[in-house]
Amino acid sequence: MRPVITLTTDYGTNDHLVGVMKGVILTINPDVTIVDITHGVIAHDILDGALAIGQAYQYFPPKTIHVVVVDPGVGTDRRPILAACDQHYFVAPDNGVLSAVYDQTEALKVWHIISEHYFRQPISKTFHGRDIFAPVGAWLSKSWQTSAFGEPITDFTRFAIPKPRVSGNTVRGVVLRVDQFGNLVTNLRVEDVPKLAGNESCTIKAGNAVVKKVVQTFAEGPSGEPVVVIGSSGYLEICINRASAARTLGIGRGTEVTVELG
Amino acid sequence: MRPVITLTTDYGTNDHLVGVMKGVILTINPDVTIVDITHGVIAHDILDGALAIGQAYQYFPPKTIHVVVVDPGVGTDRRPILAACDQHYFVAPDNGVLSAVYDQTEALKVWHIISEHYFRQPISKTFHGRDIFAPVGAWLSKSWQTSAFGEPITDFTRFAIPKPRVSGNTVRGVVLRVDQFGNLVTNLRVEDVPKLAGNESCTIKAGNAVVKKVVQTFAEGPSGEPVVVIGSSGYLEICINRASAARTLGIGRGTEVTVELG
Amino acid sequence: MRPVITLTTDYGTNDHLVGVMKGVILTINPDVTIVDITHGVIAHDILDGALAIGQAYQYFPPKTIHVVVVDPGVGTDRRPILAACDQHYFVAPDNGVLSAVYDQTEALKVWHIISEHYFRQPISKTFHGRDIFAPVGAWLSKSWQTSAFGEPITDFTRFAIPKPRVSGNTVRGVVLRVDQFGNLVTNLRVEDVPKLAGNESCTIKAGNAVVKKVVQTFAEGPSGEPVVVIGSSGYLEICINRASAARTLGIGRGTEVTVELG
Repeated sequence: MRPVITLTTDYGTNDHLVGVMKGVILTINPDVTIVDITHGVIAHDILDGALAIGQAYQYFPPKTIHVVVVDPGVGTDRRPILAACDQHYFVAPDNGVLSAVYDQTEALKVWHIISEHYFRQPISKTFHGRDIFAPVGAWLSKSWQTSAFGEPITDFTRFAIPKPRVSGNTVRGVVLRVDQFGNLVTNLRVEDVPKLAGNESCTIKAGNAVVKKVVQTFAEGPSGEPVVVIGSSGYLEICINRASAARTLGIGRGTEVTVELG
Repeated sequence: MRPVITLTTDYGTNDHLVGVMKGVILTINPDVTIVDITHGVIAHDILDGALAIGQAYQYFPPKTIHVVVVDPGVGTDRRPILAACDQHYFVAPDNGVLSAVYDQTEALKVWHIISEHYFRQPISKTFHGRDIFAPVGAWLSKSWQTSAFGEPITDFTRFAIPKPRVSGNTVRGVVLRVDQFGNLVTNLRVEDVPKLAGNESCTIKAGNAVVKKVVQTFAEGPSGEPVVVIGSSGYLEICINRASAARTLGIGRGTEVTVELG
Repeated sequence: MRPVITLTTDYGTNDHLVGVMKGVILTINPDVTIVDITHGVIAHDILDGALAIGQAYQYFPPKTIHVVVVDPGVGTDRRPILAACDQHYFVAPDNGVLSAVYDQTEALKVWHIISEHYFRQPISKTFHGRDIFAPVGAWLSKSWQTSAFGEPITDFTRFAIPKPRVSGNTVRGVVLRVDQFGNLVTNLRVEDVPKLAGNESCTIKAGNAVVKKVVQTFAEGPSGEPVVVIGSSGYLEICINRASAARTLGIGRGTEVTVELG
């Protein structure tokens, strides 16, 4: 069975960077299957990268190696790390970009990668995707010897994905992402607002918009009217049927979302 | 020989959705080759999706499985279908997105997919690319038993790709798509305007633009002047040499195109 | 070992063109690994394509076949060529798009591709990516017989990548590319400005901007202030830490960059 290596970066696809990473991987291990998760992470945005890999990795086969490079500190003393959990492997800078992965597992091992003979030489100060992360992922897919790459650590960087706050009858969340369709993906889960799922009356506000309806499918939304849908990753999304809620409502990432119950 | 599965969606590539579909496929069948046709179908636009798969599928090897997901009705009662024709397989929602495929074949079989044990559980209401279409494509690439997935149907949804209309000396068509280069791809084929190929005099109008020249290659167009080229799929295209006809002429999808003969 | 074929084009990924090229390749040789370098080359821009392949090819395994299609003259009498150098193969139009490859090698062989039985029939006038370049790359990955495809030539097209000019204490260069992060990639290499690497005082100007600092990593740049970084391909880049230098400074491709020494 061919090993699978996934790539998640903020490199975009208009430059040659992603192609170069794939060339480096195939030079080391020509027998891997390489899959792009996305290269459209918002530039330098570690939270956005954390959400991308956190919502995707669990759908890949056991033993998949996920190379995640959102790395504004490339070339500084932030460490390169290797993480193993839940039958998956991750190679990334130690800047918190794996935080959403860590949140989904209890059996987690993390190594500081120090074995430089696995790196591409000379090591640049500006493209560790090519010189460190891609080659380490490729060598791991040949040997599977995690401990050969460095030393176990426990003080790795981890930040909290923004969580909703409850006060009285109000739950306050935030728009975490705007997706391709202009849907506003919030950080509110059904379990944060159980009354929503039970169809009890709630008032949902985001920016100047008031959302009155909770529906099960995008298509149930009346034309032009924002509705709440439970998205495929379990988060509530504010959507408009066949239109971009972000553009129509003038709302983007970071906008506060409040749910008033009853 | 490794089976080939292609993907055609309106998911874009900035989200994790396409990566997730590939993870689901590789989990079921690690031995497939997955190829993106495009994820840049206009959001919710079934005609645009139909044109994309209709112009691409025939260039793939026999037995290729094409997963096509442009699905504004996801989660509603529109059916998931499996189609077989012309030595190719298609997995898609039954909303007409395969209409341009149906137009190219006479020996067509279509099944309503009902065997839920091939689906990913639990089935969401918002991401059947992940939960139904990708897994069915992957399982098909292992068994090739089309009839195991559901029941044959004949009442599948099919719409007519807009056809040119002839009245007297005038042929009326429409701009079907604007391509990456800004070329205006019309629904007019050479056989609709045989005089054009014979270089007899015609007047072609699109919006406020008048096109006077029919050329064989993009490079023959005089600088800044719109010309008509017979595109690689057989449709007439209005183009400007090394420039975007769409931007220069201010013309987009849906604009009427008329050809006056003689 | 599976042969590797890379693709570099200006086709974008919103159309079906790239998918079609992959279908054609897999129909001829189902056992190849296809890798996208980029399809985001600026439309019709041969220099931009030359830079993309020139900075990427050397990271791929020996015997990789690079199909490069930036081809505003498609269908005219510009020749299709096959080049071999440095253990790599290239299939492209003879319009200079391989110039940056030629610059990196001395042992270069080039053939004019004339064996039409390797082409897809009928050959269109507008999509040689599908009809000539993809099939030739695929057939080469089966036979590896370069001489079967045509006749050796030495009069292939080659243009000079813009080089810096030195006059007195001033080195004049240009912004070659703007990358995904908005970094301004110049045509100045460290060896063109050795004093920079030695940290002797220099004044760097680009458009109206004056850059005072040379740093080793992107992260060392003070917030909002442009700095010079030695990029991963050896070129000096004008960057702003976690921001787009192109947008902040209002500078783009083609802007002159001057370095005044001492």
